[in-house]
Amino acid sequence: MGRIFRVNMETLRVSADEVSEEYTKVGGRALTSMIIGKEVYAPCHPLGKRNKLILAPGLLGGTPVPSSGRLSVAAKSPLTGTINEANAGGTAGSRLGRLGVKAIIIEGLPKEEGPYVLKMDKSGLTVLPADEFKGMGNYELAGKLREAHGDGISIVSIGPAGEEKMAAASVAVTDLKGRPAHHAARGGLGAVMGSKGVKAIIIDDSGTQIVAPKEKDMFSKANARLVEIVSKESPMLQMLHQFGSSVGVEMANQIGSLPTRNHRSGSFEKAGDIGPGRTEELIKERGGSPGGHPCMPGCLVGCAVNFVDKEGKHLTSALEFETLAILGANLEIGDLDAIATMDYLCDDLGLDTIEMGNALAVAAEAGLLDFGDASRAIELLKEVGSATILGRVLGQGSVVTGKVFGITRVPAAKGLGFPAWEPRAINGAGVTYASSPQGSDHTCGFSQEDPHGAEGQAKRSRDAQVSIIAMCDSPGFCFFPWHLAGLPVHEYIFQLISAQYGFDFPIEEAMRIGKEVLKIEKAFNEEAGFSKGADTLPEFIMDEPFPPSNAVFDVPAEEIEKVFDFGPETEITPTGPVTLPGGGH
Amino acid sequence: MGRIFRVNMETLRVSADEVSEEYTKVGGRALTSMIIGKEVYAPCHPLGKRNKLILAPGLLGGTPVPSSGRLSVAAKSPLTGTINEANAGGTAGSRLGRLGVKAIIIEGLPKEEGPYVLKMDKSGLTVLPADEFKGMGNYELAGKLREAHGDGISIVSIGPAGEEKMAAASVAVTDLKGRPAHHAARGGLGAVMGSKGVKAIIIDDSGTQIVAPKEKDMFSKANARLVEIVSKESPMLQMLHQFGSSVGVEMANQIGSLPTRNHRSGSFEKAGDIGPGRTEELIKERGGSPGGHPCMPGCLVGCAVNFVDKEGKHLTSALEFETLAILGANLEIGDLDAIATMDYLCDDLGLDTIEMGNALAVAAEAGLLDFGDASRAIELLKEVGSATILGRVLGQGSVVTGKVFGITRVPAAKGLGFPAWEPRAINGAGVTYASSPQGSDHTCGFSQEDPHGAEGQAKRSRDAQVSIIAMCDSPGFCFFPWHLAGLPVHEYIFQLISAQYGFDFPIEEAMRIGKEVLKIEKAFNEEAGFSKGADTLPEFIMDEPFPPSNAVFDVPAEEIEKVFDFGPETEITPTGPVTLPGGGH
Repeated sequence: MGRIFRVNMETLRVSADEVSEEYTKVGGRALTSMIIGKEVYAPCHPLGKRNKLILAPGLLGGTPVPSSGRLSVAAKSPLTGTINEANAGGTAGSRLGRLGVKAIIIEGLPKEEGPYVLKMDKSGLTVLPADEFKGMGNYELAGKLREAHGDGISIVSIGPAGEEKMAAASVAVTDLKGRPAHHAARGGLGAVMGSKGVKAIIIDDSGTQIVAPKEKDMFSKANARLVEIVSKESPMLQMLHQFGSSVGVEMANQIGSLPTRNHRSGSFEKAGDIGPGRTEELIKERGGSPGGHPCMPGCLVGCAVNFVDKEGKHLTSALEFETLAILGANLEIGDLDAIATMDYLCDDLGLDTIEMGNALAVAAEAGLLDFGDASRAIELLKEVGSATILGRVLGQGSVVTGKVFGITRVPAAKGLGFPAWEPRAINGAGVTYASSPQGSDHTCGFSQEDPHGAEGQAKRSRDAQVSIIAMCDSPGFCFFPWHLAGLPVHEYIFQLISAQYGFDFPIEEAMRIGKEVLKIEKAFNEEAGFSKGADTLPEFIMDEPFPPSNAVFDVPAEEIEKVFDFGPETEITPTGPVTLPGGGH
Repeated sequence: MGRIFRVNMETLRVSADEVSEEYTKVGGRALTSMIIGKEVYAPCHPLGKRNKLILAPGLLGGTPVPSSGRLSVAAKSPLTGTINEANAGGTAGSRLGRLGVKAIIIEGLPKEEGPYVLKMDKSGLTVLPADEFKGMGNYELAGKLREAHGDGISIVSIGPAGEEKMAAASVAVTDLKGRPAHHAARGGLGAVMGSKGVKAIIIDDSGTQIVAPKEKDMFSKANARLVEIVSKESPMLQMLHQFGSSVGVEMANQIGSLPTRNHRSGSFEKAGDIGPGRTEELIKERGGSPGGHPCMPGCLVGCAVNFVDKEGKHLTSALEFETLAILGANLEIGDLDAIATMDYLCDDLGLDTIEMGNALAVAAEAGLLDFGDASRAIELLKEVGSATILGRVLGQGSVVTGKVFGITRVPAAKGLGFPAWEPRAINGAGVTYASSPQGSDHTCGFSQEDPHGAEGQAKRSRDAQVSIIAMCDSPGFCFFPWHLAGLPVHEYIFQLISAQYGFDFPIEEAMRIGKEVLKIEKAFNEEAGFSKGADTLPEFIMDEPFPPSNAVFDVPAEEIEKVFDFGPETEITPTGPVTLPGGGH
């Protein structure tokens, strides 16, 4: 069942324990939240010695199940003050799974500043000094580490933003080509890693094998069917394969949910310039291939791209919908090269593109840049990288930027900047942003049903929030194939978990765990100082009509409150596939 | 019973209503908290249109009762996000009382930026344009307003910090000489006033008289006795009269509660250089008089000073203990002229000296100044005044400064920087800082009993918090004579209220109201997003021994939780006089 490794950064001691009974049936966010709920002093300072940074692959990490190698990274968030988990694609989750690692828990604060590098391989976890990497960008760092430790490693790392303890700092995960383009981005986990003095975690699975399933036949059958569905039967996934998640730009714009000029409109006049068509065209013009790149071993969706600049220099392999929307439309930037450059900067510095896009939009409200001024936006991101005082402010995210410059119109819930899906265009998104224990994180699951209605939104949000923990976050399974396949993919996920581990794992059990995890997260927040009064959205979302629908968010507080009005017996309707893409992860 | 004036800054319309029954027996903070609890949308943005700024004199404002003219200013705080009230001496409370004003409620946000000046006189409240005062310091502003409206006015105003919506911005109140040296300082109320576009409120009580009591004989008798006690029978008050509240420096240092170098020690090697002896000596050297200056009409304590610089230029009339401790010892500055200059800058810019001292101490941790470097500290305060980016960060107070520079060792509770009385030197202070609805505000009342014990602290803190609302904050009575007189001053306060209004007002009734107000405040916070988990202190207070006692704060969370474990029937032991000075208000 794997082992949990612990490293205490104060003593630099490492220990490893067999997984205890209680954690047998959970992985990813389900596991990290249980550990945090049990071990972390809730009122602690997120960057202090009592916080813990936890990395965990999902239950299916290291198996041949496609798209199941996501890595969860978790801690109390320096951005929101709540419990937080962000997960990322790339190769780390899968390799940790092959190494039999259930989780790595990083505790304490280093006596000497560091930074350090942790190396996880089949001999265990070791701590290495890493002074020479101090202040290094993720790209250069990944190059150096691969030079020293081989091309076959995965790297989980932070850039200068994490080292400088910026609350918008992400944790980067390398892809199959060793590029740090996938990020556990939201909630400032890079700053927690920085506070622990850990610059990178090298994962070397040399000498390991795919984790063999307990019930081989059952496993093979279910996996074959899942492979078929994901690779052949979903037009949505085929679009993702062809274009990457930039398809979302077109769809969001169509439904009036493409935030433009700091959420002043849901439709962007230059949407076509940053959408899938133009992305494909530009990439092809430059001799690249737009879609079809897997970020993790065995992924059949392949939504990653290969975006190169005019000179052919690689800029990003993950020019995601959320990035295009929030660093593009929301800043009125309709120039793919500019957005890709910003994305590259965020990847290299180790920053959440969503949080930075929101922070820059707030900075635009404060007159620090004009909407549409891409070169100024790039300049400001570079200031974040050099940690000037302005850069430090922006690096703290949208809410601190708003405070410092006296701007009240800040699109954030519980301190987390809004993703592209807009509460005024999709009420269900707003209900999740307000109620989720992690703030406005679209990957916490929301419903698109009845987008301007209020009734029934609480149950739908709850169903989505529980389902996503059960079906994606705990198994380590990617949001996209689950969300978009158009077929009941989740049934195969549970069959595969059952077959892999040899225990019976009906969907009801997974849902029960999902509910338990949500409750643990909410209880942690309560102990950390958040009452249900914190489950709100900023006032402009309720006051300002959002073109083109001109709707406001009008789900009453009582409905939002009902999301968490559930017990172990409350029935959850597993959320099925939907018609809108997520992305940005 | 007076009238409540309302001005809507969006429409610039003013209305006035007779006080309704429910508010008959409350004034000051008791009244402002009731109004906020009833009228303000708790999750609102503190600088948005749904917040309200409320000014209210106490029940005894405008009467001849000595030291009873304090002014309460209140709103949801931009610094803490909680309900907030700060009160100040000076002449405004008394004049509002004479004008029959129970409260002024400022609502909405101006359509055009402003700023505006409000003028309150016996004809009512009027709104005047005031573009010419934009960005002006409190001193120059007070001079100009007195030139235009006469020397007999009171001025309640904000400096540039409030206009720039800095969360450490205060609301200044002029003294008898028209100097804006008294501040409703804590919690950033100046920023709320700034957001409303109100630069100043002129209070002109020409043509009014002292508010005559309903029961003249009873009133005269009680008042005569109170006058006697305050002016003659308390050695502590006589010390205050002679030296101002700088006496606190000596006392705090003696008990190891004079925070030094960002709360690294409770004893300051240069305490003698900033204490009462040196203050007196220096003031006399320069031909000034150290103590004996009243800040409000009829004050017999007279703790205000007249501190002039080497050239004889007036710097401050309120060089308070808290200012000396937090801008002095806590920054390792042992130079009275430097501290007075910083105090002057805070008064002129409209900043809370306590919050700024803490923010500068955190900036010192970040390497932005050296402890002891007074000229750099002054330079940084000037940056706040010119609203440079660094200045804006500091102007947001200690917590935002800590975030931006990655400093975790921030002495603050619920976002409010610590006053001088240290939780590790006085456990009772810590219990109040953690549990008070307003964060670490020493003027919310705390107990000095059993300073290193845990048992019974909850009840003592509750008693102090209720008592201070009943005995000071609601009557508008100064903390000092109540706290230090060494005789049961409070009995006379309730006799005087009874006599003034002609209703029976036993102490039990005042205590009942005090409890109700505390519950209203806590309920507001709950709705605003704070659970009881927010009732904590920063970890270093529990971890780091505090010399010279080397104690840590070790009152368990369960004891702190008990503070609010009370109902209408819970008995409150009225807090009597004590032996430690408060100050800083």
